[in-house]
Amino acid sequence: MDVEGSNLVSADNVAGTSVYGPDGSKVGSIDRVMIDKVSGKVAYAVMSFGGILGIGGDERPVPWGALNYDTSLGGFRTNITEDQLSDAPAKNDQWHRDRDWEERTHAVYGLPPYWM
Amino acid sequence: MDVEGSNLVSADNVAGTSVYGPDGSKVGSIDRVMIDKVSGKVAYAVMSFGGILGIGGDERPVPWGALNYDTSLGGFRTNITEDQLSDAPAKNDQWHRDRDWEERTHAVYGLPPYWM
Repeated sequence: MDVEGSNLVSADNVAGTSVYGPDGSKVGSIDRVMIDKVSGKVAYAVMSFGGILGIGGDERPVPWGALNYDTSLGGFRTNITEDQLSDAPAKNDQWHRDRDWEERTHAVYGLPPYWM
Repeated sequence: MDVEGSNLVSADNVAGTSVYGPDGSKVGSIDRVMIDKVSGKVAYAVMSFGGILGIGGDERPVPWGALNYDTSLGGFRTNITEDQLSDAPAKNDQWHRDRDWEERTHAVYGLPPYWM
């Protein structure tokens, strides 16, 4: 039994997947995903925005819940705004082991923490 | 606030993580993880067993639920048996888009499907 449009993908291949805004325009792409090893959930997409949405080409970790995979589009949609991106705490080398950073980031995007 | 032993890891870095059996001996390692893009769950670890557990060096997709991350060990533990590995349906090029293959595989390992 073949499932049309399988949604399984090697994590390596998520890198480079495009992310689109509400109006269908491309806002950025995924560099890599961060996994919570304990729960087996994807916790963050580390994204590049390429100067769109008013920020530079820096990488930004975005909570996975802010992205919705659109099977017809073959990419992700997001409703994140320029304001949220500028309000989110800056990324530092320790962000992925800094629960305070994680809490503030999820609050900015209005998402429940993945660890709850 | 620093969280001791962060469990967030870049998906790229899961590759190479060791997997241990119930007795603490290494049974294999993870080559890559497969993500269900819709749910954001890790669905499979594609593992190498390196001739241990009676099978050759072939890659085997193992449902993620068969692995438990052990923070003290810094690796995964599994209770999968040689019988399960030999009973599991063979991997083919289309396994990741073959719901029948997926159902039989989860049944062999006694795990609920990740898509339910």
